[in-house]
Amino acid sequence: MSIEGRSERGGKRIRLGMVGGGQGAFIGGVHRIAARIDDRFELVAGALSSDPERARASAREIGLTDERSYGSYAEMAEREAARPDGIEAVAIVTPNATHFPVARAFLARGVHVICDKPVTTTLADARELARLIEASGKVFVLTHNYSGYPMIRQAREMVAGGVLGEIRLVQAEYVQDWLTGRTEDSGSKQAGWRVDPAQAGAVGSIGDIGTHAFHLGSFVSGLEAEELAADLHTFVDGRRLDDNAHIMLRYRGGARGTLWCSQVAPGNENGLKLRVYGTKGGLEWSQENPNLLWYTPLSEQKRLVTRNGAGAGPSAARVSRIPAGHPEGYLEGFATIYAEAAAAIRACDAGEALPPEVLYPTIADGIAGLAFIEAAVRSSQSGSAWTPVEAG
Amino acid sequence: MSIEGRSERGGKRIRLGMVGGGQGAFIGGVHRIAARIDDRFELVAGALSSDPERARASAREIGLTDERSYGSYAEMAEREAARPDGIEAVAIVTPNATHFPVARAFLARGVHVICDKPVTTTLADARELARLIEASGKVFVLTHNYSGYPMIRQAREMVAGGVLGEIRLVQAEYVQDWLTGRTEDSGSKQAGWRVDPAQAGAVGSIGDIGTHAFHLGSFVSGLEAEELAADLHTFVDGRRLDDNAHIMLRYRGGARGTLWCSQVAPGNENGLKLRVYGTKGGLEWSQENPNLLWYTPLSEQKRLVTRNGAGAGPSAARVSRIPAGHPEGYLEGFATIYAEAAAAIRACDAGEALPPEVLYPTIADGIAGLAFIEAAVRSSQSGSAWTPVEAG
Amino acid sequence: MSIEGRSERGGKRIRLGMVGGGQGAFIGGVHRIAARIDDRFELVAGALSSDPERARASAREIGLTDERSYGSYAEMAEREAARPDGIEAVAIVTPNATHFPVARAFLARGVHVICDKPVTTTLADARELARLIEASGKVFVLTHNYSGYPMIRQAREMVAGGVLGEIRLVQAEYVQDWLTGRTEDSGSKQAGWRVDPAQAGAVGSIGDIGTHAFHLGSFVSGLEAEELAADLHTFVDGRRLDDNAHIMLRYRGGARGTLWCSQVAPGNENGLKLRVYGTKGGLEWSQENPNLLWYTPLSEQKRLVTRNGAGAGPSAARVSRIPAGHPEGYLEGFATIYAEAAAAIRACDAGEALPPEVLYPTIADGIAGLAFIEAAVRSSQSGSAWTPVEAG
Amino acid sequence: MSIEGRSERGGKRIRLGMVGGGQGAFIGGVHRIAARIDDRFELVAGALSSDPERARASAREIGLTDERSYGSYAEMAEREAARPDGIEAVAIVTPNATHFPVARAFLARGVHVICDKPVTTTLADARELARLIEASGKVFVLTHNYSGYPMIRQAREMVAGGVLGEIRLVQAEYVQDWLTGRTEDSGSKQAGWRVDPAQAGAVGSIGDIGTHAFHLGSFVSGLEAEELAADLHTFVDGRRLDDNAHIMLRYRGGARGTLWCSQVAPGNENGLKLRVYGTKGGLEWSQENPNLLWYTPLSEQKRLVTRNGAGAGPSAARVSRIPAGHPEGYLEGFATIYAEAAAAIRACDAGEALPPEVLYPTIADGIAGLAFIEAAVRSSQSGSAWTPVEAG
Repeated sequence: MSIEGRSERGGKRIRLGMVGGGQGAFIGGVHRIAARIDDRFELVAGALSSDPERARASAREIGLTDERSYGSYAEMAEREAARPDGIEAVAIVTPNATHFPVARAFLARGVHVICDKPVTTTLADARELARLIEASGKVFVLTHNYSGYPMIRQAREMVAGGVLGEIRLVQAEYVQDWLTGRTEDSGSKQAGWRVDPAQAGAVGSIGDIGTHAFHLGSFVSGLEAEELAADLHTFVDGRRLDDNAHIMLRYRGGARGTLWCSQVAPGNENGLKLRVYGTKGGLEWSQENPNLLWYTPLSEQKRLVTRNGAGAGPSAARVSRIPAGHPEGYLEGFATIYAEAAAAIRACDAGEALPPEVLYPTIADGIAGLAFIEAAVRSSQSGSAWTPVEAG
Repeated sequence: MSIEGRSERGGKRIRLGMVGGGQGAFIGGVHRIAARIDDRFELVAGALSSDPERARASAREIGLTDERSYGSYAEMAEREAARPDGIEAVAIVTPNATHFPVARAFLARGVHVICDKPVTTTLADARELARLIEASGKVFVLTHNYSGYPMIRQAREMVAGGVLGEIRLVQAEYVQDWLTGRTEDSGSKQAGWRVDPAQAGAVGSIGDIGTHAFHLGSFVSGLEAEELAADLHTFVDGRRLDDNAHIMLRYRGGARGTLWCSQVAPGNENGLKLRVYGTKGGLEWSQENPNLLWYTPLSEQKRLVTRNGAGAGPSAARVSRIPAGHPEGYLEGFATIYAEAAAAIRACDAGEALPPEVLYPTIADGIAGLAFIEAAVRSSQSGSAWTPVEAG
Repeated sequence: MSIEGRSERGGKRIRLGMVGGGQGAFIGGVHRIAARIDDRFELVAGALSSDPERARASAREIGLTDERSYGSYAEMAEREAARPDGIEAVAIVTPNATHFPVARAFLARGVHVICDKPVTTTLADARELARLIEASGKVFVLTHNYSGYPMIRQAREMVAGGVLGEIRLVQAEYVQDWLTGRTEDSGSKQAGWRVDPAQAGAVGSIGDIGTHAFHLGSFVSGLEAEELAADLHTFVDGRRLDDNAHIMLRYRGGARGTLWCSQVAPGNENGLKLRVYGTKGGLEWSQENPNLLWYTPLSEQKRLVTRNGAGAGPSAARVSRIPAGHPEGYLEGFATIYAEAAAAIRACDAGEALPPEVLYPTIADGIAGLAFIEAAVRSSQSGSAWTPVEAG
Repeated sequence: MSIEGRSERGGKRIRLGMVGGGQGAFIGGVHRIAARIDDRFELVAGALSSDPERARASAREIGLTDERSYGSYAEMAEREAARPDGIEAVAIVTPNATHFPVARAFLARGVHVICDKPVTTTLADARELARLIEASGKVFVLTHNYSGYPMIRQAREMVAGGVLGEIRLVQAEYVQDWLTGRTEDSGSKQAGWRVDPAQAGAVGSIGDIGTHAFHLGSFVSGLEAEELAADLHTFVDGRRLDDNAHIMLRYRGGARGTLWCSQVAPGNENGLKLRVYGTKGGLEWSQENPNLLWYTPLSEQKRLVTRNGAGAGPSAARVSRIPAGHPEGYLEGFATIYAEAAAAIRACDAGEALPPEVLYPTIADGIAGLAFIEAAVRSSQSGSAWTPVEAG
């Protein structure tokens, strides 16, 4: 049961602010726990809700002072910038449509940004944001959190090391059931904004969960999508955005794959699964039991690689906290993104190069995600014609 | 552990002949075991190989007399027809390209036919065969054997009974790994004919395994495919037929789905899986552990339906032999097709109507399978354009 | 998907009779299918029920002639012995208490015996039967059918080959739920005799299922039990035989283990599981998905050994019929016992030595099983004191 | 994907100190993360190692000031008590033998105690500690952390609510493989103290992991052990404490069970499993995939209860942080013990009654655990005789 020691802090905590994540939200609380787990951030300010009353109540509930609970992100950007102990980084956990302006405001004040996905609602905005990030010299972290799971790191390491040979197939899916009925009519805040084009953008399921599956496929395989053929569909009457998508993919270099995302498949909670096959072997992983990775070397027995178990490599060990057989979960995977963000911010502030093992999703991943989304929409509108996925 | 009594025979055995299935073959032995399990057939004649020496040796090995071991199917058809104790039915277990002429020869002699899939190598042949069957008045059974699994019957019964509500999604896959390398160069008889267009027809994986997945999707959902968009591909250099296919499907009435078949995905032996989702619930099934069916009523807990277990319905019980928890397998599912064939043959010979619970794949399923294959080939050749699946 | 050829017959079928197994019985039908699968037996005679009417009706249903349907086993033994085409072997599928007299009657007539377990209801009878078998020179096969599963053969081969090192732990369990309530009051023939001391003997669950688990543990580990401490219990009011047993075991040579059998654990159908651990590795197997064997070499990754899959050994391949990924089940495992019996009978009749790879449970296993049962009863009656398991 | 709001803090953080948990330790880091996750504690002081150099280095690494990094627990108790901002609670994460004196020292200073298990090394000490706790009026929390898993809360709620009927069987096991060889010779700090009687006490595996399994069985079933029969054993040559134990249990009221713990079973990482069966249903749970609970109502289909999924009850929801399908793990379960501790401390300080839904293991559980250990040792030394488990 022994495990290698792992520095929990290594210096002062980074002062963090949050935009969004007030009462009734889901992902804000996740970000806060994730930021605490490895003890590298201290939440000191927030603009938790666009409703001032709710913002203040939410702030008090999580221990923020009234002084640093702001009524708007703009106010927070301005006033925090004026403080000697102002925030060093901001977490943006609002609905999709506001990511871009909020990120812009904080980058302009020299604040590092940790932002929920999808990064923007249009590819053009994502590219514009890339320019702003470049100009700011600040760190921008996109929380494609599933890439923080240790066995996903393990899978990526194995593919990069040639263990699977040449990759031929990347099969990804993210399947849920919570929108099978008209959940948005039940008053669910979570459902409400996700099916509203004004808040979510032009897509539903593929923006909310499809981009996660897409990112994971690329993250593990190391491949870039070249073109796709998509069939987006809305099954639930009256819903304005897709709740199911079937997508065929072709990657640069010859690999192919499919991606299925759905919010209307009863019996699936958060069924994010990835299967990657090459000339020498295959890998299979499922998010709901994330500590396991199935690996089959061609013509040999299937093997169970476990987090911190026998034969797991350094890239998984580096982001693990506890011994094999004691499950880590979603929050720890998310925390790894925060720990990586902390490393990147410290390196950036010190003007040092980032060690190559530190991995986090960047604006490039955000651009790739939007390129995927826009190609899928165009393809689906054109009879599922093969459509290029614009390179970053 | 009690189980309802089940008549094992109910009359004389049907005299059966076999074409193909000599030494070195795989599926012939499967048919023979399947025919024995429920004791409704007696194998009395065979043209087991086109090689006369091998035919005779094979016949002796399985207990056929030299007298009724024939050098060709044509000879067998002629000479058996002349015997008072001649075969009543023939099992055709040869490579795809010969199914049609062999079936024709026996139908012409008034012999019932049990035939491996795909039924022919062209849709036109399948339609011509349908005419011959109609004219003969004989029974024609296509061994889409997976439809004999009790939990597949259970799934079909549940869908037909409205348990899932309106069907929205049919996700099917059949994934193998045995052709990841150039298996055909190893002298494998099984690999050899499957990658040879002259023996297998115009398609590889989608004919060999894709049609099984397609049939199962329709069998369980009760839906007919309307159009598809396909991406067929050959990954292994020098192979002339597809070894992987991604297909998007649209069914009449509005359901959608995907079908993935592959022979190059390391870690998959016979990964035939089916998932069906409707407005009220979902079903999930995997061939490698076929006695289980996962059923989730919308907004309720996932349930495990087991063969002969609590809550399993009459259509599963009817084709089960032993109590829940004692696994039945591939051979029993196959045997059910033979038992159904026996029932159909007895009813046909007696001029009686077939009870509605007796289910077996017919030439209509064969036509649907070829329509699927031909649409997939056309779509793939046309940039994966949506292509109608011609109705039967 | 290719598979090594396997002789299906190799000569004339053995003429088989059956005692027990009439309408309403369970295991008789299983024996009949098992005898047919590999085509080495032909059922020609039966005394299927002690009720003459039922015996005849049952016989007709399975295709026996009236002439060879007998009203009693004694009559069958006598009259079959007088026929030139009389039975060569008999299958005894009656409740436990009659196994001994029936076996004795047929051995006395020179008929090979295939007998259900437990072999007798007392250890003394089992030893007496051993003497009769020895004197007869005939084959006696005890249908501890689970030892016919390919992956159980694989496990035994691995242990015998030293793959696990020195065995330390043998953990076996066979858990059911069908007697959780007073099933015997429902008119179930299966439940009725199993809870009746006059028909089942002095024990309930440990005779019916515990002996299977015990046999499997010894078969795989190659170890002999030295002593045990048992806690037999009856949970259901009014039931006269144990429906649950906890047993601690010590094997000769230092290994230890536990055995749990139960018929009152809701959610378990036929939960027969075996786990064996040694100094160099561990094996885990479950009957309900029997085509898989989990193998962990010490300090390496867990591996999935599949029937006919990569790395499976000759002892599994020898008793497999179809490729990996196509599940074989309970009936095939049972059929292997019949195929082994056929090989033993042919060798015996020919005066030849049996090849070492032919394995079937014998009277020695029956004696070991009764020694286990009697030790468990004595221990349980003596405050779970450690009690020697008498050697064969 | 919505989830009920959950107050993350609700007031000021509790000032926490830690004894043990320096560099090279395992469980100290776990406690620290667990204390952070729900943001109810702030670690401000530590005596992290008995080696002063290591203590200071460890303290710096985790962000403690030099001023509040102490060379011994005694010094820390004294000096913190003298500060106006001294610690309110202490976490004791040292090897077993020091739990008692450390707890005594802090209780004497009016500091609440959170202590690792087993609580002491003798039952007498545990009882003495109970008296000291009672006298102190302070909160004492024993970190039987597995009782913090939501599905364990769910299981307890179901049993308490009568869903399983009268409980008959409690089957628990905790199986590892990390001590299969002489791990203690490798320099592993974790292995070293666990096999050393001076640090671990009179028992090895049953103290380290067996008590967890025992606690879980009682926590879920609500039953108290009455007597047991144990077979403790050391498989590894030269090891002085048990590395495997087989135990049969009888609970007050008539239920029975078994408990197996082992550190020498290759292929098991942290295989803690619990199965509970009653007259009306059964429950099955495994720690390595802890978000699932299998529930079978008698004569109905097995159901999968998931954390925050359909049909999960309030006691699970209360200790969950994220939606169903996003796995929570070991650290979250541990964090729940800390959150409960915080609630108990706040209530104690305020002189308020603790709401009944707040559950944490207390000294009573510690006493029960030592009574279990001592009974097991006595029984094993007495030929596995049934031995009373002394009541609290």
